[in-house]
Amino acid sequence: MRFAAETGTVMRREIMRQVYLDNSATTAVLPEVAAEMQKVLLDAYGNPSSLHTMGVEAERIKNAARRILAEACGGREEELIFTSGGTEANNLAVKGVARRLKRRGRHLITTQVEHPSVLYACRALEEEGFSVTYLPVDGTGRVRLDALEEALQEDTLLVSVMHVNNETGTVMPVAEIGRLVKEKAPEALFHVDAVQSFGKLPVSAGDWQADLITISAHKIHGPKGCGALWRRAGVPLAPLFHGGDQEAGLRPGTENMAGIAGFAAAARLALAEQSKRAAGLARLKEFFLRAVFAAIPDITVNSPKEAAPHIVSITFPGVKGEVLVHELTRWGIYVSTGSACHSRRADPSHVLLAMGRTPKEIEATLRFSFSPLNTEAELEYTVEKLQQAVAHLRRLTRRK
Amino acid sequence: MRFAAETGTVMRREIMRQVYLDNSATTAVLPEVAAEMQKVLLDAYGNPSSLHTMGVEAERIKNAARRILAEACGGREEELIFTSGGTEANNLAVKGVARRLKRRGRHLITTQVEHPSVLYACRALEEEGFSVTYLPVDGTGRVRLDALEEALQEDTLLVSVMHVNNETGTVMPVAEIGRLVKEKAPEALFHVDAVQSFGKLPVSAGDWQADLITISAHKIHGPKGCGALWRRAGVPLAPLFHGGDQEAGLRPGTENMAGIAGFAAAARLALAEQSKRAAGLARLKEFFLRAVFAAIPDITVNSPKEAAPHIVSITFPGVKGEVLVHELTRWGIYVSTGSACHSRRADPSHVLLAMGRTPKEIEATLRFSFSPLNTEAELEYTVEKLQQAVAHLRRLTRRK
Repeated sequence: MRFAAETGTVMRREIMRQVYLDNSATTAVLPEVAAEMQKVLLDAYGNPSSLHTMGVEAERIKNAARRILAEACGGREEELIFTSGGTEANNLAVKGVARRLKRRGRHLITTQVEHPSVLYACRALEEEGFSVTYLPVDGTGRVRLDALEEALQEDTLLVSVMHVNNETGTVMPVAEIGRLVKEKAPEALFHVDAVQSFGKLPVSAGDWQADLITISAHKIHGPKGCGALWRRAGVPLAPLFHGGDQEAGLRPGTENMAGIAGFAAAARLALAEQSKRAAGLARLKEFFLRAVFAAIPDITVNSPKEAAPHIVSITFPGVKGEVLVHELTRWGIYVSTGSACHSRRADPSHVLLAMGRTPKEIEATLRFSFSPLNTEAELEYTVEKLQQAVAHLRRLTRRK
Repeated sequence: MRFAAETGTVMRREIMRQVYLDNSATTAVLPEVAAEMQKVLLDAYGNPSSLHTMGVEAERIKNAARRILAEACGGREEELIFTSGGTEANNLAVKGVARRLKRRGRHLITTQVEHPSVLYACRALEEEGFSVTYLPVDGTGRVRLDALEEALQEDTLLVSVMHVNNETGTVMPVAEIGRLVKEKAPEALFHVDAVQSFGKLPVSAGDWQADLITISAHKIHGPKGCGALWRRAGVPLAPLFHGGDQEAGLRPGTENMAGIAGFAAAARLALAEQSKRAAGLARLKEFFLRAVFAAIPDITVNSPKEAAPHIVSITFPGVKGEVLVHELTRWGIYVSTGSACHSRRADPSHVLLAMGRTPKEIEATLRFSFSPLNTEAELEYTVEKLQQAVAHLRRLTRRK
């Protein structure tokens, strides 16, 4: 472990091995990132809206971060809006476009497998009088392009599709979607939720013909509480809340300066090592899958072969996912049943349902998500404990 | 200076004295607060929505912070909602109540001197079909209670009044307002923006009969990007954005965990020393005012005698405030013309206008805001440079 032992929890962890495989929920902040934040907290603490030197320095730090992140999306510095995270950025994109352009039309398109922040923003808009098409996906979780083509109307305001699904790692054909949108409904805007792909796969406003892209810090070893919406210059948006002049009035409120500095630091590291990290993650995933298949019979992998390199969804028939999470926790192994945002709901994953899985299969499903900090040794240990736990729980099930 | 020299800016500062008197815009983060944040960033990095040990530990940290802050407002743990700052909390209170209760009424009351996050939230609601009464204030910036009494209607949904004004330090009679609201319009909810008073003056949901209270971390030596809305149990609210189940669905999105931990640490320190800090600030303010009056002729103090101890607004006729800010910056003294949120707007302060000041007077006005980190020696130095600068600028004005 890299971290200092200061609390009781850490003490416990130090005598027990720890394997964090819930990196799609959130990631460990890298020491370099935390150091950058510390500097902003203690030294460059000015308010970027202040006119004096301290304010100017804060503004400079903010805009340097803005440039790094905007360019990472394939855009320009002035096109990026900082938010409190991916959820707010997704809401700003979806509601912001709809409310601002409601005189031009009332139709939106998204998919059945989006993150709740897009799905529930769309449902909220339905209550405001908009109509939303929720596109179906195939068995691998990929959106059906024929359904998109059919759904696109002249008055469609926005198409919002995620790049990488947070539960399965499925990669959406965003470039094809962008092409289709601009061909069939040239006035429609295209929003891509790239929270799960940013820093792992190439994100490109140009290649995708995207007008809006959501990214988040805490999935790439940056801090929680900071995200951004890249918005092509000129794309109209209504703000979610009102106040000062920050972020061109589109996102008022004193900026989360430490978060912004940490986000930029995390992105700089991720982008510098992007292909190396992606290759490493792909190797980890292959290693893990091979080991799981060798150790545990009768399982189904829900993530398609071409999925992003850091997420694997596996169904273990005869086992309750939630029980398995707790079993593994006892061994210091941290995984999840699906999205953390849904962890406290009883209803089965909407993503796996849309992919045609049954509630019973979904209940037996775990998500393993990797980071470059994981090692093959950790995965070996995980598979060993997983094998024991699954065998044990299946025996119990059979006995009933 | 307490802080390490690492950047060019700091180097420059070390050879020049630095006096930060813009503490109403934002404050320096205390080292103890930054250390607490560092721990969360590097060690307790779980997602509070995750079901495993790392998630449970994060949830525990969040709820411990929640309890400290809720109790500091005079409320209970489960009544506090974390937000990205005061602006978001004010919007959530104002829009959240209005949109949720729109079937019961369409009328809101606020004052002409609120923070832009309340004022512009109200203006946005006017576009949604609500009607808003903006109460006038007297020459000291205090809301006129007769006007409030007259404005209260049976269908008034919300009365939103700040505790301490951010430009003048004027303290609003929130307990009297609460009494009046509950007497004349018992169904109306009462929201207090306590961003400028929290940690400096007693904040009390009970004494004020308040239903909602906004607080923010970065005004009390906590980090920027974290605030909270205390909401009495049962008070109905519509969320500003949609997504996961965080904060009872009222404020979805993965929590700014480092910010939350820093907020609680800053509040713990502020509350433990509240009366000591307030007395110290009052002494600093008196020292400053006495010195300014002795050194500079022909000035007007816009803050009333009973104002909060950390804000002083002074008009220097014959001087442009913006020029004076820049003059003082040359000496390492950081002050502002008014609210940071308005710093880049050309229009005169709405607060001072409502108090009856002329645009010319407003243009000649500076805000000095203190923190317990300031010293009398710093203020002596400030008054010395202020005297020189004001005399110099007045000479230039007279010559024209």
